[in-house]
Amino acid sequence: MTRTNPYAMGLDKNAANFVALSPLSFLERSAHVYPDRVALIYGAVRRNWADTYSRCRRLASALAARGIGPGDTVAVMLPNTPAMFEAHFGVPMSGAVLNTLNTRLDAPAIAFMLQHGEAKVLLTDREFAGVVSQALSTMGAHRPLVIEVEDALAPPGARLGEIDYESFLAAGDPDFAWQLPADEWDAIALNYTSGTTGNPKGVVTHHRGAYLNAASNVIAWNLPDQVVYLWTLPMFHCNGWCFPWALALAGATSVCLRRVDPALIYPLIREHRVTHMCGAPIVYSMMISAPAELRAGIDHVVQGLVAGAAPPAAVIEGCEGAGIEITHVYGLTEVYGPSAICARQPSWQGLPAEERARLNGRQGVSYPLQQAVTVLDAQTLIQVPADGETIGEIFFRGNAVMKGYLKNPSATEEAFAGGWFHTGDLGVLHPDGYVKIKDRSKDVIISGGENISSIEVEDALHHHPAVLSAAVVAQPDTKWGEVPCAFVELKAGRAVSEAELVEFCRPLLARFKVPRRIVFGELPKTSTGKVQKFLLRDRVHSASAID
Amino acid sequence: MTRTNPYAMGLDKNAANFVALSPLSFLERSAHVYPDRVALIYGAVRRNWADTYSRCRRLASALAARGIGPGDTVAVMLPNTPAMFEAHFGVPMSGAVLNTLNTRLDAPAIAFMLQHGEAKVLLTDREFAGVVSQALSTMGAHRPLVIEVEDALAPPGARLGEIDYESFLAAGDPDFAWQLPADEWDAIALNYTSGTTGNPKGVVTHHRGAYLNAASNVIAWNLPDQVVYLWTLPMFHCNGWCFPWALALAGATSVCLRRVDPALIYPLIREHRVTHMCGAPIVYSMMISAPAELRAGIDHVVQGLVAGAAPPAAVIEGCEGAGIEITHVYGLTEVYGPSAICARQPSWQGLPAEERARLNGRQGVSYPLQQAVTVLDAQTLIQVPADGETIGEIFFRGNAVMKGYLKNPSATEEAFAGGWFHTGDLGVLHPDGYVKIKDRSKDVIISGGENISSIEVEDALHHHPAVLSAAVVAQPDTKWGEVPCAFVELKAGRAVSEAELVEFCRPLLARFKVPRRIVFGELPKTSTGKVQKFLLRDRVHSASAID
Repeated sequence: MTRTNPYAMGLDKNAANFVALSPLSFLERSAHVYPDRVALIYGAVRRNWADTYSRCRRLASALAARGIGPGDTVAVMLPNTPAMFEAHFGVPMSGAVLNTLNTRLDAPAIAFMLQHGEAKVLLTDREFAGVVSQALSTMGAHRPLVIEVEDALAPPGARLGEIDYESFLAAGDPDFAWQLPADEWDAIALNYTSGTTGNPKGVVTHHRGAYLNAASNVIAWNLPDQVVYLWTLPMFHCNGWCFPWALALAGATSVCLRRVDPALIYPLIREHRVTHMCGAPIVYSMMISAPAELRAGIDHVVQGLVAGAAPPAAVIEGCEGAGIEITHVYGLTEVYGPSAICARQPSWQGLPAEERARLNGRQGVSYPLQQAVTVLDAQTLIQVPADGETIGEIFFRGNAVMKGYLKNPSATEEAFAGGWFHTGDLGVLHPDGYVKIKDRSKDVIISGGENISSIEVEDALHHHPAVLSAAVVAQPDTKWGEVPCAFVELKAGRAVSEAELVEFCRPLLARFKVPRRIVFGELPKTSTGKVQKFLLRDRVHSASAID
Repeated sequence: MTRTNPYAMGLDKNAANFVALSPLSFLERSAHVYPDRVALIYGAVRRNWADTYSRCRRLASALAARGIGPGDTVAVMLPNTPAMFEAHFGVPMSGAVLNTLNTRLDAPAIAFMLQHGEAKVLLTDREFAGVVSQALSTMGAHRPLVIEVEDALAPPGARLGEIDYESFLAAGDPDFAWQLPADEWDAIALNYTSGTTGNPKGVVTHHRGAYLNAASNVIAWNLPDQVVYLWTLPMFHCNGWCFPWALALAGATSVCLRRVDPALIYPLIREHRVTHMCGAPIVYSMMISAPAELRAGIDHVVQGLVAGAAPPAAVIEGCEGAGIEITHVYGLTEVYGPSAICARQPSWQGLPAEERARLNGRQGVSYPLQQAVTVLDAQTLIQVPADGETIGEIFFRGNAVMKGYLKNPSATEEAFAGGWFHTGDLGVLHPDGYVKIKDRSKDVIISGGENISSIEVEDALHHHPAVLSAAVVAQPDTKWGEVPCAFVELKAGRAVSEAELVEFCRPLLARFKVPRRIVFGELPKTSTGKVQKFLLRDRVHSASAID
C-alpha cells in the first residue's frame, strides 16, 4: 500500500514565508522600531539607530561602488570605535566578508592574514600605522584599498589611507537597497585564530550562525529592554562574541572604548549607567584590583559575561563583592565565541561563596540555540561517564559552528571528523551534566606519568592575595619528564617570595602538582587577556630553564 | 578576468555545523539543563523537565510503534492539560504532524477536520465525548485510533478511546532515539482557521518557523530565568502562540488549567506566584471585572500578552490598575500566533493613561525574529504613506509564516500573491511606523460611502462603565446602505439603556459612526474570546433586523 504524504504537496518556500537568516535584519528592525534611541556613544559622539543604519548603508553602497561584493574580503584593523561597529553591518550588507584583524599582532602576521584572506579593502586606524604600513609594504600588487578611519581620540600615528572613512561614507547612498545574502549559509566573517604554532587558520562563519548566536546571546543573558553595553571586549575577537549583532537585536546602546583600563571603565559605567559588559578574566581582575575610589558613586549592578579563559575562583568571588554579577560562558572562534554557558541553578544560591565560585567556574551546558556541547573520548567519540573524573575532549555540534577554515581543507576535515567540532580542550562531565575544562590538550603537564591540570595549579595560586595573574606550563625535567613551572604577575604594591608562594600552595595541591619553580613578572597576553602560554613554554624550554 | 571565490570552496554543511532548526531541541536542552525544575503543575500533579522529556519520548515511541511517522497527522481534542503540552513535543518527535482541534467546535466541524487532515490518531478528553463520538460516527473506515486521556479533573463524560493515554505511554520507550526532522521545512503542526464562511482552511506550519517564533516569544517578552506561566490561552489556538516551545526554551514552569475563570485564575496566580500569562482581551476583561476579594494577597505584577482581537482601551487601562502589565501582540494562525508587537517606548511613560492605552493598543512592529509587518495598498502592494490615515491591507513576510494551506493550492496561492502573506486585515501606518488595525476587511461598515471602523465604535462603547464587551457589525439600511449595529454585553449587576448608551457615544464618535441600534445580551465567542461576528451579522441580516 502506498502512502501519500499530504504535507509534501504545494507547500513550498516562497518570498513570503522564507527569508535568509542574517543578523543584518536586526539592524534594519532596530532602525525601524527604535530610530531615536542611542545606538553608539563614543567620546562626544551620540548616534541613534536610524543614523547608524544610514551610515552602514552608505558604507555598503560605497564598497559596492568600488566593485566589492560576495566573495570579497574587507579587513579592518580597528579598536572598539563606532567605525568598527558599523563595519559589522556595512561590510556584509555589501555582500562581502568582514575580516577583523587582531590589533595586537605584528606586521608579518597581519601581512599573512591580508594575503591569505585576499583582502580587497582595509579599514585602519592610525594607532596601528606602523604595523600596517610594514605589512602593506610586503604586499606589492595585492595591496588592498586602504581607508583611514580618522579618530580624534586616537594616539599619534601616520596616515596611510588613500581615502578617509567619512569621505568614503559621504559618497555612499544612505538609502542603498542592500540585499540579504542569497543563502543564509554564505560567509559573513573571517577570523584568524591566534594559533600557538604555524600559520593562523582563517575561521569562516556564516549569516545563519551569526543570527542564531546573536539571538542566543540575548536569550542566555535575558537581555532586558534597555541595555547599555560597554565595549571592554575587542570586536576583533570572534566579532565581539556576536555582540554587535545581539545589541542590534536588543536595540541596545553601545559605549565604545579604545582601551581597557579601569580608570576609563569606571567613569563610563557611572556616567552612562552601563548595565552589561564582556571580557576575559583579566579584565575583571583589573577592575577588582583597581583603587576603590574609582568605583565611588556606582550603585547599580553590572552584568558581566566572562570567557576566553577559565575564570579563577578568586575572580568570580571578587566580582561578587564589586557589584559585578558574573556569568561564565565558554567557546572558541570556531563556535562564534560563547557557545556554552554555566547556567546558574537556583539551588546554588544558598551555598558558600567558594562553592558557588567552583560551580560557576565550570564551562557548563550548551548555549540556548547551540545544539550540543559535551565531552567525548577523543578516539571513539563516545561520551565519557558523567563522573567528574574521566577526562575526554570537549566537542560542539550545532548551527553556531563555523563553515570551516579558509583554503585549508585538511584542517577543516580534521576539525569536523566524526560529525563533531573538535575543540582541542580537555574536560570532564560532572554528574549534573556540566562540562568542566581541565586543560587545553597542549597545556596538560605530565609529571611522572600523572596528568596535572595547569588550571588547577593556577587556581591555587590565584587564591593568594598578592597574585594578580598566574600561568602554569610544563617545564622539562630529567627525572619526572615534566614539572609545573608557574609564571606569576603580582598586584601593584604587593610582594611575595617564591618560597612563600610555594608554601602557600602545599595545602591546596597534591605534592606532585605544587609548582617546582615560580617566575615573577608581567605575563605575555593577547589583547583579549589570554595568556600566551606558548611564549612561556618557549622560555622554560630554553637551556637555562632546564633543571 | 575571472574572479574565484575562496569562500565557495570546501566550506560545506556537515553533521557538526548544520542541524535542522526544531523546537524539539528546546525540550532536550531543558531536560539536560533543568532536569529537576518543575515543568508542569496541574491539580496535584508536579512533573519536572526530565520526566516530561521521558514521557514525550514514550509518546513518540508508542506512536512510532503504531506506524505513525512523517506525513501522518495526530489530532488532539484536549483542554490545557499536561497531555496537551506533551503532545506538542511527543507527536512531532515521532515525525508526525500535530493537529490541535478547537474544543468549542461542533461535530460536523470536527469531522471535517479529522477527515481533511487525514488524522491517524486522536487523543481526546471525556469532556468532549459527545461531540467527538458524533464526529467519529461519520468517519467509517477512516476512523482514527482513539486514545483517551483520563483526567480526574474532567467533568463527567463517556469514555471513547480504544486505549487510555497512560497505558499508551507505559508501552513506550522513555529513552526512544527520536530524530530531528529530516528538513527544518517539514511540517510540525496543522491548525484549522475558524473561518467565517465555507470550510475551514488547514494552516500547515514548519519546524523552522516554530523554532524561530518560540525564540521570538522569549526575546520579545524578555523572559527571565524563572517564569511561572499560567495557561489561560488555549493550546489549540496556534499551538498556544508557540508557547509550549517557548517555555521549553526558557526552562519555565507551566500551570495548566482546564477552564478560564477568574475564580480559578486568581488562586493559581497566588499559590504558584504566576509571572506570565496570555489571552484575548476578554480574559483580561473578566479578570478586571472579577470581585476584588479574589485578588487579595497577590502583591506581584503579572505580565500579560494580549492578542486575538484589538484590546479596547478600557481593558488596557483596567489592567494597569489590576497589577497586570499588558503587552499587546498581533498575529494570525498563519503567522504562528504573535508576529507583531506593540513595542513600548520609554517616551510613552510620562503620558496620560488614556494616551498610553491608545499607543499600546496598536498592532505595532514586527516580532523580533519576524521579517516584516506592514500596510500595503492591496492592489499595487506599495506601502501606504505613514500618515495614520491611508487604509491598506496588513501584510507579513518572514520565517514565521506558514507553509500554506493543506490540500488547498488556490487558497495558498492567493494568500501569498506578490510575495507577501495577505492577512485580510485593514490598517494604517502611523508616523512612527507602527501598524494600527482598522478592521477585518469584512468588518468594515460602509455607510453612505463612508468607511466606519467597527473597532472605533466598539472602543467608544467600551469606555462606558457598564459595558463588559461590545461588538459592532454592519446592518443593512435602505437609505445608507449599511449602518453600525452594536451588540453589548453588560457587566454583572450593571444596567444602561439603549438611549443612554447612544447618547454616551455621541461626543466620542462622528455622527455617522454612532450605533443606530444596540442589542443587549451575551456575545457569541470562540473559546479564545474572539467574538463570532458572523453570527451577529446573520442576526442583523435577518428580515426582522432590517429597518
